Amino acid sequence: MIKITFPDGSVREYEKGVTGIEIANSISPRLAQEVLAASVDGETWDLTRPIGHDASVRLLKWEDEEGKHAYWHSSAHLMAEALQILYPGIKFGIGPAIENGFYYDVDPGEGVSIKESDFPAIEKKMMELIAAREDIVRKSISKTDAVSMFSDRDENYKVELINELEDGTITTYTQGSFTDLCRGPHLPNTSYIKAVKILSAAGAYWRGDEKRPQLTRLYGITFPKKKMLDEYLVMLEEAKKRDHRKIGKDLQLFHFSQTVGSGLPLWLPKGTQLRLRLEDFLKKIQREFDYEQVITPHIGHKQLYVTSGHYAKYGKDSFQPIKTPEEGEEFLLKPMNCPHHCEIYKAFPRSYKDLPLRLAEFGTVYRYEQSGELHGLTRVRGFTQDDAHIFCTPDQVKDEFLKVMDIIFIIFNALDFANFEAQISLRDPDDKEKYIGSDENWEKAERAIIEACEEKGLKTKVELGEAAFYGPKLDFMVKDALGRRWQLGTIQVDYNLPERFELEYTGADNQKHRPVMIHRAPFGSMERFVAVLIEHTAGKFPLWLTPTQVVVLPVSEKFNDYAFDVVKELKKFDIRAEVDDRNEKVGRKIRDNELKRIPYLLIVGEKEVENEEVSVRKQGGEDKGSVKLSTFAEEISREVEEMMNRGN
Amino acid sequence: MIKITFPDGSVREYEKGVTGIEIANSISPRLAQEVLAASVDGETWDLTRPIGHDASVRLLKWEDEEGKHAYWHSSAHLMAEALQILYPGIKFGIGPAIENGFYYDVDPGEGVSIKESDFPAIEKKMMELIAAREDIVRKSISKTDAVSMFSDRDENYKVELINELEDGTITTYTQGSFTDLCRGPHLPNTSYIKAVKILSAAGAYWRGDEKRPQLTRLYGITFPKKKMLDEYLVMLEEAKKRDHRKIGKDLQLFHFSQTVGSGLPLWLPKGTQLRLRLEDFLKKIQREFDYEQVITPHIGHKQLYVTSGHYAKYGKDSFQPIKTPEEGEEFLLKPMNCPHHCEIYKAFPRSYKDLPLRLAEFGTVYRYEQSGELHGLTRVRGFTQDDAHIFCTPDQVKDEFLKVMDIIFIIFNALDFANFEAQISLRDPDDKEKYIGSDENWEKAERAIIEACEEKGLKTKVELGEAAFYGPKLDFMVKDALGRRWQLGTIQVDYNLPERFELEYTGADNQKHRPVMIHRAPFGSMERFVAVLIEHTAGKFPLWLTPTQVVVLPVSEKFNDYAFDVVKELKKFDIRAEVDDRNEKVGRKIRDNELKRIPYLLIVGEKEVENEEVSVRKQGGEDKGSVKLSTFAEEISREVEEMMNRGN
Repeated sequence: MIKITFPDGSVREYEKGVTGIEIANSISPRLAQEVLAASVDGETWDLTRPIGHDASVRLLKWEDEEGKHAYWHSSAHLMAEALQILYPGIKFGIGPAIENGFYYDVDPGEGVSIKESDFPAIEKKMMELIAAREDIVRKSISKTDAVSMFSDRDENYKVELINELEDGTITTYTQGSFTDLCRGPHLPNTSYIKAVKILSAAGAYWRGDEKRPQLTRLYGITFPKKKMLDEYLVMLEEAKKRDHRKIGKDLQLFHFSQTVGSGLPLWLPKGTQLRLRLEDFLKKIQREFDYEQVITPHIGHKQLYVTSGHYAKYGKDSFQPIKTPEEGEEFLLKPMNCPHHCEIYKAFPRSYKDLPLRLAEFGTVYRYEQSGELHGLTRVRGFTQDDAHIFCTPDQVKDEFLKVMDIIFIIFNALDFANFEAQISLRDPDDKEKYIGSDENWEKAERAIIEACEEKGLKTKVELGEAAFYGPKLDFMVKDALGRRWQLGTIQVDYNLPERFELEYTGADNQKHRPVMIHRAPFGSMERFVAVLIEHTAGKFPLWLTPTQVVVLPVSEKFNDYAFDVVKELKKFDIRAEVDDRNEKVGRKIRDNELKRIPYLLIVGEKEVENEEVSVRKQGGEDKGSVKLSTFAEEISREVEEMMNRGN
Repeated sequence: MIKITFPDGSVREYEKGVTGIEIANSISPRLAQEVLAASVDGETWDLTRPIGHDASVRLLKWEDEEGKHAYWHSSAHLMAEALQILYPGIKFGIGPAIENGFYYDVDPGEGVSIKESDFPAIEKKMMELIAAREDIVRKSISKTDAVSMFSDRDENYKVELINELEDGTITTYTQGSFTDLCRGPHLPNTSYIKAVKILSAAGAYWRGDEKRPQLTRLYGITFPKKKMLDEYLVMLEEAKKRDHRKIGKDLQLFHFSQTVGSGLPLWLPKGTQLRLRLEDFLKKIQREFDYEQVITPHIGHKQLYVTSGHYAKYGKDSFQPIKTPEEGEEFLLKPMNCPHHCEIYKAFPRSYKDLPLRLAEFGTVYRYEQSGELHGLTRVRGFTQDDAHIFCTPDQVKDEFLKVMDIIFIIFNALDFANFEAQISLRDPDDKEKYIGSDENWEKAERAIIEACEEKGLKTKVELGEAAFYGPKLDFMVKDALGRRWQLGTIQVDYNLPERFELEYTGADNQKHRPVMIHRAPFGSMERFVAVLIEHTAGKFPLWLTPTQVVVLPVSEKFNDYAFDVVKELKKFDIRAEVDDRNEKVGRKIRDNELKRIPYLLIVGEKEVENEEVSVRKQGGEDKGSVKLSTFAEEISREVEEMMNRGN
């Protein structure tokens, strides 16, 4: 008999060789239907793998990341089995589970291609194999046997992978006629998979190397319920409609020009308005929190980044140095603003009375990305951080964290990100040597972050070993309207740069001390934040933020003058309004302006002119009837005011 | 007899060979004392040079640039003569008149140096030569004779210059023992010069080439009246006190770090505040004038600048291309914003209804300057233009010029630049081929600029041949408090970039047309403008602009709380106030804060606390007595409001 310890601390005895599925069954048949894998002493195992010794066991379900991972990994094998049947001679690369579903890189053979129109046949074959309830069987074999087995089948990609493995035992997984080189874990059999969808096909170089053959990467997703797949597909459809690249184009927010360069956004007037409004909003908050705005250049001597350590770390993979025509100087595009801010700190001798010193800058930085990696505003080569660096004493870290969190909450509130969580990244307690900074300071800072989160009642996840080498950090993840998670704001403690730049302040004890630096960016970057905001709101920005708040629609040309008067009057209330004076039917005007996500449409005709009124139609179609122009203006102003102050 | 025509159109007959000075004498002996040179058929001549034919003559006095130029040029020769006497073996480079005075580059010989302590002796010798009333005599000689004359004296620098001249007659000027290779013109004799000052000595490479010998450049200035020299020296002293580099440091406005790089300003918090306030002020005006703000990256593909023509023109002498680690792309730091704005114009098909399209950006650009050329904020390697590009039809040029001029006047008014003039730069009518754009468009644009200036009643100077090759322009020159002239705002028409970028709009005729571009920058650049503003105001910025408007000085610690309450109250009125709560005597606090150019000091003690008052001391020492805090706040708010709206 062996002892199995469960997460709640309870212990039960089982016969040696018991499997995860048997344990689940012993608890409840219902649980047995839901578990997908088992965590045995912290390692994820197949449910059918015998446990030979006392162990801590956690049964993993769909809701557990590791459970879902096993599920999608088995689904990748299932798709591969279907492909092997449908495309004899096909060769396989790798086929992992990913954040949403799985993919398999395959080489279908000379002259054969797998297209979207082929997906239904593959899905159909997968459903047949599911119905056949094929067991998925793990087997350990020697490296030599593995090489010979995959060589026999001309699986040259697999052979290459096996040859690179360390000598020793290798595992394979087999279901039906398909065997894959694989570490697992996997589902017990194919019948766990209930709903199947092949999503897309794309080219992918073998091992990401453009000099190696190009394989076909087939993406798919599966679910334990048909309904879940349907919901996912609806979400995908909705996400496509919300794609910030599409909406950004439709609403004329930003533009990319190949002549200027990939990944270098041109902010069009409406996008610039939106962005500057966000910046002004944060600037105002930062003034209240005693930040001081600075402006620094976009380049710096190479030496600046040698000092900061960035050159050694990123120099080779980034934009290369800018040479001068003479004098042999070399500059770099700045990849971050911190070194410049350190130089501002050093511009004067500093005393403890000057701390905390909070230097803020909307600083545009440039980081090289491969052109294939670029994606709209979320992956660019130049972006503007809503950056600030707080120079403080070690004792001030907690207080500063609390204040930065206040700022972040104000922003999330004003922008309707109701759903967010935070991740605290701490040192690996077993590997303290790889971090810079004294033990005492680390402990102080880690405690400060944890306490600050507790005081704010923030939902957090603590990750050991995820801290940067220079300090612990706190990252904010928001869930958007489609339930997708985005990493936005960040707060990071830094002991490294103060050391490298030899920053000092004179303490109350008249001695020199080293300040702590805190990096923070509530938005993250203006580009990324605006992208997320577009996808979260589907372009229907909060009223206070949206470029055009009101469009006045005269029912005919006769009322154009009145329409322009309305706009003039609204301007006095700082309301951003336009007239749609195109020679079109009012129905058409309503449709066009709804597409432009205008929050309020004001229809004006005979009656409105007579009574100095406007007929109000709210975004989404709600007809609010005619009201006095002044009443409307006051209401809108109040609405804006309230939104901007929310959470403040 | 020959006919001499005067500027007023009158004609008088003189004997052939009459000289300028004789003509002046014939009009009035007093005039003869004032004239320094004569303009003969548009060319500046010595007063003693015989006129051999009918000619238009203008007599040039100190007030005329050409008159002053001859005066200082002769002064350079006078200094050279004194140096030749005092430093036997000295060799001469070039010695021109400059904007304020003159200089001479000299090689005093191995081991000899000329230092500030030597200046009085040189000045004394110059005064002796003035007292000697030496005639300055012009002589024409052949190139061969010139070479042999200067070779005999080992004047190798002069010989090098002569050898590069075209064959033909060369002129020399001689006074006393000194003869110089010179085109002239010069004063009749040394006694015209009344007051003399050697200002400074600096190193200067022969012909600006660091591989050639380093000469000593001696700067001097002279005046026809002792009083004028005294006034000039007082002004120089004042200018030194107003040096923006010194004040910028004292007031902690900006900072240069060698680690970041020369010529790359770091804007400190107070400087940033000031600059952003200027930017916000202009942004607000621009909104009223229907400008649209955009944001573009600080780099662009090299191809962008090949298209614009900038690469061919400046590529070699500027910051070199930024290479990517792979993919072989090349980017340039943007030296101007126009190419990016052209790409924004091209983001959509444009119609005549979209014009004028006014794209504005506070765009930071980078241009390489040799480190020796850098000077505070006026000559930098990175600066932010308050840039805008107006895309319009040829017919809209005049209207747009008028509107830009309105903006410039609002700014000059709000910033107390009462004294300014404008220069219109037109085509050289005799060399139309070197300009791009049709004759019709040039005439239209030139007429538009001239008419716009007339309508505004602007004092202008018209310069033929000073237009850029791509279009005519209008530059604004302001005179600062010391009477120094600074070129600030500029408005330029451009036919070139629309052509190169193939910009188009669909006209009312449904045909494609090319728009005209207007570049304009009322401030010029934020860096240069702030520098000029500092020197103009000696750091005493207008109330609406200055970083700290009010400092509250508690007479003792007991009143600190009330002082902070006062600041809080003032904040409600958007007044920027601080407390000086240092443990110092109030007299010391007053002195220190006056040095910081604080517009209002509020002294608070027992009586003020009791009555909710503040005792107001205005910049410069004016004591305004005690007033209710609320009264003070309202008055200041009104003062700020009025200043910002001045000229609006």
